Amino acid sequence: MIAKEEISSWFRSLQDDICQAIEAEDGKAKFEEDNWQRGGGGGGGGRTRILQHGNVIERGGVNFSEVFGVASSFLTSQLETQNKKQETTNFFATGVSIVMHPQSPMVPIIHMNVRYFESGNDKWFGGGIDLTPHYVNEEDAKHFHHALKNVCDKHHTTYYKEFKKWADEYFFITHRNETRGIGGIFFDHLRINEFSVQERFEFVKDVGNCFAPLYVSLMRKNKSLPYTDKEKQWQNIRRGRYVEFNLVYDRGTKFGLETNGRAESILMSLPPQANWNYNYQPKKGSAEEKTLTYLKKEIDWDN
Amino acid sequence: MIAKEEISSWFRSLQDDICQAIEAEDGKAKFEEDNWQRGGGGGGGGRTRILQHGNVIERGGVNFSEVFGVASSFLTSQLETQNKKQETTNFFATGVSIVMHPQSPMVPIIHMNVRYFESGNDKWFGGGIDLTPHYVNEEDAKHFHHALKNVCDKHHTTYYKEFKKWADEYFFITHRNETRGIGGIFFDHLRINEFSVQERFEFVKDVGNCFAPLYVSLMRKNKSLPYTDKEKQWQNIRRGRYVEFNLVYDRGTKFGLETNGRAESILMSLPPQANWNYNYQPKKGSAEEKTLTYLKKEIDWDN
Repeated sequence: MIAKEEISSWFRSLQDDICQAIEAEDGKAKFEEDNWQRGGGGGGGGRTRILQHGNVIERGGVNFSEVFGVASSFLTSQLETQNKKQETTNFFATGVSIVMHPQSPMVPIIHMNVRYFESGNDKWFGGGIDLTPHYVNEEDAKHFHHALKNVCDKHHTTYYKEFKKWADEYFFITHRNETRGIGGIFFDHLRINEFSVQERFEFVKDVGNCFAPLYVSLMRKNKSLPYTDKEKQWQNIRRGRYVEFNLVYDRGTKFGLETNGRAESILMSLPPQANWNYNYQPKKGSAEEKTLTYLKKEIDWDN
Repeated sequence: MIAKEEISSWFRSLQDDICQAIEAEDGKAKFEEDNWQRGGGGGGGGRTRILQHGNVIERGGVNFSEVFGVASSFLTSQLETQNKKQETTNFFATGVSIVMHPQSPMVPIIHMNVRYFESGNDKWFGGGIDLTPHYVNEEDAKHFHHALKNVCDKHHTTYYKEFKKWADEYFFITHRNETRGIGGIFFDHLRINEFSVQERFEFVKDVGNCFAPLYVSLMRKNKSLPYTDKEKQWQNIRRGRYVEFNLVYDRGTKFGLETNGRAESILMSLPPQANWNYNYQPKKGSAEEKTLTYLKKEIDWDN
């Protein structure tokens, strides 16, 4: 039987490994750490690590958190717990959340979350990785999805197909009728009745471990590409869409804000700058217009 | 008996009057108009007017809309309608929404909404005006609140006290524990059982009519004040908070997005640019730190 302390301890070491890999590739900035305790009478807290003004990363956060306490009725309703009796129940939640906003519009934004949640006899894993290129590059998109498929295939033949579709649905900006980026994988309440906690944890570990080599390869490949003010402007418009997704739809953000999480840690996912140009339409035949054609559900990147 | 057409027609003329006054004071840019029809099978639409790159206003929107159709269960639940039978019901909603983002950090952001809603026998008015100075100036704040109090006092002795408190509660960024700005007035379901539709309409007219002279006076007083990059940076941080409020809390934004309103018209309330600096703290004794001390509920500006 695996203990929750073992899971949160592994998440801590994942945070260490990823920070080290990003720092090494960035070559300039270092992560700074802020430890915080949860407010409002709740237990636990987090270890926020932020890297700013790097060679490649303008701002990135790699956050570990471990929170516990009595689940509020809001929390219970949000988490679709199997405990429907509305009785008072304790919860424990731990995970790692990452968002990287690169300096260059030619390097994609990336997000990953891996998490574990326990309440009574319910023990869940969830997670996701998705890529948001300011300019979609087919080669990178295929490379990204192939890497995720390899991780998924090690554990279950249907995982990639299922979790890729879930990411398309989840990372979707309904009011814009566009996906946030080229998707990735998203999963929650991972196969509770089918696999043991240990087996499910092994999958989550493989997802977590694939992050650093995958993003480092995308940083390395794209960081030296030239760009002009035009591409920076487009980057800021895409960053505006990122803000819209995170504040209007993202469940992790809502969960964090509703459970009295530390606002600066939760909102590190927002970009350093974002712009909104009224009714902006990219030029016909431009790279910007081309990118919009990729912001759709159900594109098969694994071909 | 006053007809809904008379109300929406008055809102249209309010839009005209306000656009004219803002253009005259700005002295450079002109409002451009986009007419839109509601998507998703709903009826009605709107007349969006946006002014950009002016002498004083960087971007501002003065939007009229008039939408109608069958109220969804979402809408019914949001609107706390007196029709609790969950039966299918028609609705009609019309109003004017305004947000002005000035170029200069020394000129405050302003917002106003006045609206009318009809469903079955329910006929409601609602509205609000609030001011968000990047730098709070006591004289301006008092002038603003006095003007609103004068409008309120004409109609009911308790309106200002009641609606000022409501604005403090409504325009509040819970996760930052700060108000959006210095508040103003906010009201909804205005005194249905106490006053006739005509009487309530007269109050809403007075609120709408006070907007242009009030904001023009604030533009004129502050537009020539000097500022540097430091103040522009602070403006962009405050604009970030404005984005957080509008996307996380604002009911008008949610209502618009959920009822298939035109995203570009609804999100004109977002600033042209916003910045997020991780864990930014203003310097001790600075004007920025002073402003934060004013972003609290229950400040008495009417003294």
